[in-house]
Amino acid sequence: MKKQVTVAVTLAIGALMLVPAYAQFARPERAVDYRQGAFAIMGNHMGRIFQVVQGKVPYDKDAVIRSAEIVEFTGRLPFEAFGTGTDLMESKAKPVIWKEEAKFKQLANDMQAETVKLTAAAKTGNLDAIRNQFRATVKTCDACHDAYRDK
Amino acid sequence: MKKQVTVAVTLAIGALMLVPAYAQFARPERAVDYRQGAFAIMGNHMGRIFQVVQGKVPYDKDAVIRSAEIVEFTGRLPFEAFGTGTDLMESKAKPVIWKEEAKFKQLANDMQAETVKLTAAAKTGNLDAIRNQFRATVKTCDACHDAYRDK
Repeated sequence: MKKQVTVAVTLAIGALMLVPAYAQFARPERAVDYRQGAFAIMGNHMGRIFQVVQGKVPYDKDAVIRSAEIVEFTGRLPFEAFGTGTDLMESKAKPVIWKEEAKFKQLANDMQAETVKLTAAAKTGNLDAIRNQFRATVKTCDACHDAYRDK
Repeated sequence: MKKQVTVAVTLAIGALMLVPAYAQFARPERAVDYRQGAFAIMGNHMGRIFQVVQGKVPYDKDAVIRSAEIVEFTGRLPFEAFGTGTDLMESKAKPVIWKEEAKFKQLANDMQAETVKLTAAAKTGNLDAIRNQFRATVKTCDACHDAYRDK
């Protein structure tokens, strides 16, 4: 256990983003699981909202609010899990992330700001507002994926 | 896309828990990613609180509140992702889950109830209260893992 704490503290020091001052990830693999898990959940709920704004699934206000809240919540999670050591793990994360930390962080912040607005749009119950804000949010997803995620 | 929606609707009908009335998972693999992602995040933050209640990491009230809130939030997510079809995917989920849905759901509800109390305990700022409620929460994790998760 002591060794795990040491590794975790090392990761915390190397982490890109705001991190709480205590142990985070026992091993880099666990950090990758964590961030991929957050992205999987976020992506799933963006997909659910996409079905609605496309008209492929009937609009259910509460369901869209729930999905938007999950997107917003999980969108805050992944970025502390790009710490030093995780750049050596197999994943779709491009190595350039660790050379452009400020830009990467900015794109994360941009996305997070749009997801807050997405929840707000969902709560209006106005499908046009949801559609517009969904598109604005997707742009910030794409901006980061284009720069920093392998196909 | 039409085929994906059909699959998702089939999954929704077969899902164990409360599900919104729209498409959820394009494929069973994605449902497994989703639930494993939620469990990974939850487990990570239970681990962070564990480090604190063991005294291995200094107590930081805000960090523990954040972890408890993440545990509570992500603890609500996985159970809609145990729908029909996902029982055939490779995972640690034991097949008996799909024969004991009521018991499985009850254990999920028990855990979720304890995580709400864990957030409340975290907000008191009383480390003894946090420790006690952490143990109560872990019991509900273990109850489900012992019955329904392969080692």
